[in-house]
Amino acid sequence: MTKNTPFKVALLGSGTVGSQVLRLLTTQADELATRIGRPLELLGVATLDAGPLKAEYPGINFTDDANGLLASGPDIVIELMGGIEPAGTFIRTAIEHGASVVTANKALLGAQGPQLYEAADKQGVDLYFEAAVAGAIPIIRGLRESLVGDEITTVMGIVNGTTNFILDKMTRDGMTFADALAQAQASGFAEANPTADVEGRDAANKAAILASLAFHSTVTADQVYCEGITELTPDDMAAAVEANCVVKLIAVCELLPGGAISARVYPAMVPVEHPLAGVHGADNAVFVLSSQAGRLMFLGPGAGGVPTASAVIGDVVAVARNKVHGIFGPSQSVDAIRPVAPIGDAMTRYHLRLRVVDAPGVLATVAKIFADHNVSVANVTQTRPSILDDQSKWAAELHLQTHTAREADQQACVADLEACPVVGGKPRVLRLEGV
Amino acid sequence: MTKNTPFKVALLGSGTVGSQVLRLLTTQADELATRIGRPLELLGVATLDAGPLKAEYPGINFTDDANGLLASGPDIVIELMGGIEPAGTFIRTAIEHGASVVTANKALLGAQGPQLYEAADKQGVDLYFEAAVAGAIPIIRGLRESLVGDEITTVMGIVNGTTNFILDKMTRDGMTFADALAQAQASGFAEANPTADVEGRDAANKAAILASLAFHSTVTADQVYCEGITELTPDDMAAAVEANCVVKLIAVCELLPGGAISARVYPAMVPVEHPLAGVHGADNAVFVLSSQAGRLMFLGPGAGGVPTASAVIGDVVAVARNKVHGIFGPSQSVDAIRPVAPIGDAMTRYHLRLRVVDAPGVLATVAKIFADHNVSVANVTQTRPSILDDQSKWAAELHLQTHTAREADQQACVADLEACPVVGGKPRVLRLEGV
Repeated sequence: MTKNTPFKVALLGSGTVGSQVLRLLTTQADELATRIGRPLELLGVATLDAGPLKAEYPGINFTDDANGLLASGPDIVIELMGGIEPAGTFIRTAIEHGASVVTANKALLGAQGPQLYEAADKQGVDLYFEAAVAGAIPIIRGLRESLVGDEITTVMGIVNGTTNFILDKMTRDGMTFADALAQAQASGFAEANPTADVEGRDAANKAAILASLAFHSTVTADQVYCEGITELTPDDMAAAVEANCVVKLIAVCELLPGGAISARVYPAMVPVEHPLAGVHGADNAVFVLSSQAGRLMFLGPGAGGVPTASAVIGDVVAVARNKVHGIFGPSQSVDAIRPVAPIGDAMTRYHLRLRVVDAPGVLATVAKIFADHNVSVANVTQTRPSILDDQSKWAAELHLQTHTAREADQQACVADLEACPVVGGKPRVLRLEGV
Repeated sequence: MTKNTPFKVALLGSGTVGSQVLRLLTTQADELATRIGRPLELLGVATLDAGPLKAEYPGINFTDDANGLLASGPDIVIELMGGIEPAGTFIRTAIEHGASVVTANKALLGAQGPQLYEAADKQGVDLYFEAAVAGAIPIIRGLRESLVGDEITTVMGIVNGTTNFILDKMTRDGMTFADALAQAQASGFAEANPTADVEGRDAANKAAILASLAFHSTVTADQVYCEGITELTPDDMAAAVEANCVVKLIAVCELLPGGAISARVYPAMVPVEHPLAGVHGADNAVFVLSSQAGRLMFLGPGAGGVPTASAVIGDVVAVARNKVHGIFGPSQSVDAIRPVAPIGDAMTRYHLRLRVVDAPGVLATVAKIFADHNVSVANVTQTRPSILDDQSKWAAELHLQTHTAREADQQACVADLEACPVVGGKPRVLRLEGV
């Protein structure tokens, strides 16, 4: 091949991101050729619904036959269909044919990332996926390359823009979850079927990808403990504000003292002065703590066709440059086989709200239950619930913040609290992160 | 060479960063060998003052003969001496001998970066310098690799921790510059000779490096317009607070409409809601605007031996991995030869304070001068200066914010204002960035 032989590119998918990648590949072809040192030639776009793109790009080969396109010998395959199948099969086929792959498919990588990384390594091809986590924010490259000589201890982030938009609405405008979701859907920030976002599954996929990279180990999405935001109430948001916090859907990946990995996604209170508290709307941010570099934060647009397409194109340039040199990029280094700990082993702080009998000795009774479970109380505030039936026996409310405790101890403590005669109903618990 | 032949490393310098790099190279040798795929062997440390390190690292070859060390055949040279010479000569020697170079030397790269990048390219070796800008924040890799497929329009940042610490003190505690500097020196945040920091020269070096990378062009530090913070007064800080802003030493690199580069460093007002306003103490942050990715921000520790050493080690791993594959990393791509515009062509907003005669018609007179120079006024507030001699003729003060205007027009406008009989003395001007 001479210096001017183009690299052949196959694009799978023509949705929100795919159509923007198509635009960049065509309108910025000259700049890309300069950066890479060789031109790119688009063999075709595999899509079941090209829609108006066919008219807009008359010279482009749109096909519904992805297998045929993959068989036509692409050097680089860009997979932007999403979903586990058939995307996974197409990526495996591409790798087997020796093509480098660029994907934004967090569901697939969250489920089968480590196997795919290994397949790519074995075949000596690149598998790049900057766009799979936090859109255009170069967090994957940061973890894979910049911090590779450091020991990362925590990765914590807001990695789902839809839920961040909804939580912002609930915090700022006092909306219920249902109203905020409806508004997010009306403004295009939530899909018609928002389950993957609001149940935290999307964030769990990203947490699995981040934890694998940060700790050089195999973590899949089904190992990530996951709670969504659907049960949050305006009361939760108000309690957070009272505690000088905001509620965010947080993905936490951290090393526990014994060396195991804790990976979890849940709504948590974050102190207002923490950098993550200032991340609004559909922005994403990822915060990395490491032994040497200290505290780093990356912030930017977490989704959207155009920013995500920018990350995809950055990867295309990187894998194409690697091809110019006949090499491939850093592998995933899944070498330290650390176990993933159950949620019971996670260590964090907690904010609890309890309805209690308004009588002398109640605080002592409650405090003893915490002490019995090794959960140390940092502070307590007693209030009167605003919307209480006058006749209610549970005339007072306790707000407690704990010091760091094991999740299993906290859960056992809450079970005993619920069974305790001076406590009315199930205590409400939110984790407290970034303290 | 077999898979286990070590890469030979020479370390130049054993100061704040060098000693931490030495620590990581020795204590994390096994982890580094795993990440790289080959061990590293430290040939020696060239230093004029090993101090207590000699006793701490008894097995290490400390030498004052850097040339001898370079002649002993290192594969990788880590330059952490700082300063333009002799560091520049040592780096050129290393490149000529075919060694890859990792450096944190912003003064050298700010002055001669493009020539050194070209020398490394010609020789087919790597020259990596993540630690030269914003300590451990992976902004260089972001610009060189992640955003390479995008068109960057602005890079704006807080890239000097010393001045950020001083400005924080002036803003929060109402200190004068001199007092804040003295406190920064006492706390180890400013050097005994703080000139390079407080005059903005350190930030100008970093702006030159950032502008070269972002716009794929040759920009040197002497082309960066530079004002320091030594002339700032508590009045400036108070005026900023009144305008709902804070004063930060900002490095701005942007493309002007005609395609030229504007690179400038000066204290500027930044709106409190802008992400850069929330960067405190010795932290650094860099904000990147691009056509596709939108707005990204990178935040983290901007200095300090340990975080900077982490960035150096990340680069060592990257260049060593490249050597394993027999290749070298992305070149600087200094291909678009854009001119660097004079400061007069810069476009930004301005905040002006004028002492004026308290009489009817004064505002009309002042407004006409702005209009004559094509500087559009966004808003005006009239106040009475607090510390005015009662007898003063200049009994009123005008605070004006402009819309975006050319710097040359603003300067001509200010000259006319100064000459105007209703205006007392030289108007005080601060740029307004991030609006």
